[in-house]
Order: sequence, then structure tokens, then C-alpha cells
Amino acid sequence: METISENKCFGGTQGVYSHTSAVCGCEMTYGLFLPEEVEFGPVPVLWYLSGLTCTHENAMVKAGAQAWAAEQGIALVFPDTSPRGDGVADDDAFDLGQGAGFYVNATEAPWAPHFQMWDYVTEELPALLFENFAIDEARQSITGHSMGGHGALTIAMNLPERFRSVSAFSPIANPTKSDWGRNQLTAYLGSDEGKWAANDASLLMREKGFPGPVLIDQGTEDQFLDLLKPEALADAIATRRQEAIVRMQKGYDHSYFFISTFMEDHVNFHAEALYAG
Amino acid sequence: METISENKCFGGTQGVYSHTSAVCGCEMTYGLFLPEEVEFGPVPVLWYLSGLTCTHENAMVKAGAQAWAAEQGIALVFPDTSPRGDGVADDDAFDLGQGAGFYVNATEAPWAPHFQMWDYVTEELPALLFENFAIDEARQSITGHSMGGHGALTIAMNLPERFRSVSAFSPIANPTKSDWGRNQLTAYLGSDEGKWAANDASLLMREKGFPGPVLIDQGTEDQFLDLLKPEALADAIATRRQEAIVRMQKGYDHSYFFISTFMEDHVNFHAEALYAG
Repeated sequence: METISENKCFGGTQGVYSHTSAVCGCEMTYGLFLPEEVEFGPVPVLWYLSGLTCTHENAMVKAGAQAWAAEQGIALVFPDTSPRGDGVADDDAFDLGQGAGFYVNATEAPWAPHFQMWDYVTEELPALLFENFAIDEARQSITGHSMGGHGALTIAMNLPERFRSVSAFSPIANPTKSDWGRNQLTAYLGSDEGKWAANDASLLMREKGFPGPVLIDQGTEDQFLDLLKPEALADAIATRRQEAIVRMQKGYDHSYFFISTFMEDHVNFHAEALYAG
Repeated sequence: METISENKCFGGTQGVYSHTSAVCGCEMTYGLFLPEEVEFGPVPVLWYLSGLTCTHENAMVKAGAQAWAAEQGIALVFPDTSPRGDGVADDDAFDLGQGAGFYVNATEAPWAPHFQMWDYVTEELPALLFENFAIDEARQSITGHSMGGHGALTIAMNLPERFRSVSAFSPIANPTKSDWGRNQLTAYLGSDEGKWAANDASLLMREKGFPGPVLIDQGTEDQFLDLLKPEALADAIATRRQEAIVRMQKGYDHSYFFISTFMEDHVNFHAEALYAG
């Protein structure tokens, strides 16, 4: 593992590190914020999964999460959104290939050799972090934006024992019914739609739900509402009687100005779960 | 004036606008955050001047200032750091020419035709803002980072009636004695050092001071300490018995992670002055 940078930030440290990923077959870079409390023992951790076109860096510099994580004594992890590099398959579209891993394990050519983002985010990167930093594996929560909101929700519902709470900012909520989903799931997983269901938050919510609290924020002026389909997830949550808060935020769009506005609420929401019991 | 973008942010609006600048002879772009209180009448304003290589955008997306400005009901202005465009002089160095206007009016070739950043920030842009937005001309304060901290301090001390308070993050504090200053002042103003004094915060502090409160934050691990020379400004402040808080912040560097950490303090510091009396 190589240290790219470490900056003091809100009393803690905002680091950027790279490592050779076995599952993705390339160098991967991630951001990690550690609050100053890490000096006294393992701290809880909140995973933040980013959206299309993002790297590890966008949320790390634009979401303003460190202010609240420092206040709560929580670590933040910012993984990249896909494998990268000259030898890694790509596509001219911004929403397929590099920067658009969709947090799935690709089974189809040309993606399968590198696009193993599910295993990367749920296995390889956690193992690396718990080995190298004082982060408490027993206290994890997860959030994300857009494609990363999709990732956070699907990962949390598939690994219900691992995460105490899950939230999302304007998630891609029903990808099996959206052009943000059908194109990518076809490319990465093939055209058999039966293999897509484990990667659709609304279907998962209908089928199994989540054992902890859920928080969803969605701007009413989001330019991608037709692709995100928050109504499918809201319906599934209500139908299931899932413990959840779903907020339609008047006037907000899809940008980091929206995310930063409500980041304090999300960090505090997760802190309550992470420090419970 | 053209609207580039407007995003809802912390209940207010983060806008980006461009306009034809007469003093700079080119299109100029700026960011403006208006808190929701603007609907009920003119709001106080805090100017934020950015550092080398920055545009209007860096602080707007990375400093986290909107959270605190919204809480205090204060507008934020993010001007660009220089004139820009194909017809505008430039230099290969990152610290001269485009992105490095140093907030002075250039008198020398090839800079004089466009590099009139003092007049732009103190006359043309304020006039444009007060004409187009509900901002209270009687309640202004100013801050900035690095080259922008130099700008904030020199502008405030040269226009003591205009600003109620001034602060700076790691300012270029003594440019007439630094390679961040001597090179640029020679290029923009010529080699007669007598013409430089009005653009040096430490000399101005020694000569005239500032009638309101001053706040300076400087990281002890700043990689540019030798160029910034905070000791000259600290000495001048103490010698003058200027009302001021000068904080050497242990472990922090020159980055936006440092700025965002202490932004709440700066906005609240200015709010106290802006809402006094």
C-alpha cells in the first residue's frame, strides 16, 4: 500500500492511498478520513460510495462529510467507482466502463477481468482497511450518491449482518427498470434478467428489506429523476413496513450542493446506529 | 450578465455567473451564494478571495463555507483570481499571469491591458453585485486564502471604511520580501519597490492597521511557510497593538482540508462584526 497524501483535517487525517487490487487486477486508489479519536482505539466507520464519473476524490473534497465525522468520531472511506488504467476495458459513454462500475461483479466480456467492484468494496478493501487501520469491523454503516446510493443499498441489503444502518442521496433506486441500470447490467451481467435482481434496491427492499434504519434523501428538482425512480423504492419501503425515513427535498438537484446540505443529517443518523448498544 | 448555473444549497442558492468586465477586458466568472434570508431583504456579504491557480470554483466547492453562511444568513462572493482567455497575457509559471493576478492593477507590459484585479474586485464586481442582488453594501467583510489572504488583508487595510472585519487563511503576508511577491510585483508594477508597499499586508499593518477585528489562521506544517512569512505579519500586528487573533494551527498544511476545518470559525467571526450595531 502506498500513501499518496495525508492532510490534517478537522483534528484528524484525510489520507489517500493506493494498492494493487487482486480482484480488480489493477492499482486502486481510495480516500480514508480518520478522526483524532483513532489514537485511542478502533473507531466506527461509514462507507461512502460515489456516483457515475467520480473517483475516490469527489466526495472527499466536496461533500463536507469530515466536519460531521470528526464531531462524531467516525472514520469515512471513499472507494473509487471502478477499476482504471490502460489495460482496463472502457466505453465512450460516461455511464459504462471506467468511472461506472455499478458495484457489481461483471461476468461478461470485455468487463469480467477487471470489473469486480462488488468483491472489491465488500471483501478486498475492507480486509485491507481492518488490517492497516484502527477501524472497528463491528461498527460499520454505509451511504452513497446516485450509482453509489444504489451500491450502498444493494450491499447493505445483501450483507444485513455487516451494516448497522444505510442511507442514500438520490440513489439509482430501480436499475432493472431504468436506462441507468438495464444498459449496464446487460453489459456486465448479461441479458438474463434473473441475474439482475440482487442488484436492484427496490426489488431487494420488496424481497428482504434491511434489519436496521434506512434514510433516503432525494431532491425534487433532480435532473435525473426519471432515471433514478425514487417512487419504486418509496413504494417498496412502505409496502414492507421497513423502518425508514424517505425525504423529498424541495428545490434540490443532483449535485454535491445537495449532498453537502444534508450530509450532517446522514452522518448523525449513522452515528446514532454506530454508537447504539 | 449570464447565469452559468444555480443550485439550491443549504436552503439558499449557489450561483455561478459570467459578465463582460470593462476593467479586465475579458469575460469574468464569479460564484455567489445567497442564503434564503435574501428573500426578505438585503443580506450582509463576505468576500472570499482565492489563491494561486484557483478559479471562482475551488472555494465554492471545497471550503464548506455555505453551511455556516446559511446558518448566519450571509452571502458569499467567490471572484476569479485573474483575467482569462486567449487574448490575455500569460506565463508558464503557475504563480504569474492567469490564475495569479495577485489583486493588483498592473502597470507594466504585457500585463497592464487585462490584469486590473484590484479595480475588478474593489469596484467593478461590487457595483455589479449591488445592482443585481439584494446584498447590503453597508455590511461587508472579507477573507481569503494564500494569495487571496494577501488580497483580503491589503484590500481591507486600503479601504478601511468598507469592511467591518478581515480574516485570512495562510496569507502571503509579506510579499515584498518573498518570492511569492517580488517576482509578481516586479512583473505587474515594475522594479521600483516604492510602488509595492500598498500591496504588502505586513507593511500596511505597520503603517496603518485596520479599524476592525482581524483573524489569521496559519498551519504549522504548511509547505509554503518560507514564502508566506506569517512572522512578519504577527510582528506587525503585535507592534501596532492591532485588535487581532493570530492562530498557529498545529499540524495543518496549506490545503483546503485546512481551510474547511476552520471555515466555521471565520464565518462566525465575520458574522459577529456584520451583525453588530
